[in-house]
Amino acid sequence: MDTMGRHVIAELWGCNIDKLNDREAMENVFVNAALEAGAEVREVAFHKFAPQGVSGVVIISESHLTIHSFPEHGYASIDVYTCGDTIDPNVASDYIAKALEATEKETLELPRGMGPVQAEKSKAKAKV
Amino acid sequence: MDTMGRHVIAELWGCNIDKLNDREAMENVFVNAALEAGAEVREVAFHKFAPQGVSGVVIISESHLTIHSFPEHGYASIDVYTCGDTIDPNVASDYIAKALEATEKETLELPRGMGPVQAEKSKAKAKV
Repeated sequence: MDTMGRHVIAELWGCNIDKLNDREAMENVFVNAALEAGAEVREVAFHKFAPQGVSGVVIISESHLTIHSFPEHGYASIDVYTCGDTIDPNVASDYIAKALEATEKETLELPRGMGPVQAEKSKAKAKV
Repeated sequence: MDTMGRHVIAELWGCNIDKLNDREAMENVFVNAALEAGAEVREVAFHKFAPQGVSGVVIISESHLTIHSFPEHGYASIDVYTCGDTIDPNVASDYIAKALEATEKETLELPRGMGPVQAEKSKAKAKV
């Protein structure tokens, strides 16, 4: 398998606070985001923290999706990493931003598995 | 909880091929790396692919560690993301690089949860 991958790092602000604190809803959003992008889901692990916040991961055949939510700040820290060139990680991150009702989304895309880590493909801050 | 976090992205090359293909060994390395850094382990999920390769995640109270291994290339794609300022993600990534016997390690550190995604803190390519 080729080592080449695309890793989208997304900072979501102004999200729906109730959703950010709902483990089951978050799990559904992430599994559906993976499927929407055409990925194959392998493992799903989500954890609810007290008093608030959810961390979770969906391992896909093509790598992973992760989230760490901070409901008190309306903030969600998202990663979508896909190996190969058949899946666009932005499809999943856009799906997640919409599902969490983020009012602001900032992303950076990193190529992975191609030698030195580079960050040239960063995108401008953009409203969703 | 403060949204501030540190995300270390590491590309490991020249790793021990047998270790990269051993799900149980990989899981042990990652749990121990988290503990070595002083993190609290919450969820562990690792998956072995056919014919080769392992993907896995350790969710910690402070965020996550992930790996995707490509034994046929001696390559492992690592992420160590820690929230707060009490844990240094480099402690875990250094532990992992040593455990996997990487001959080359390239890292990039991204601040998370502090507004626009930035990548200024990138480190130079370095032999481990």
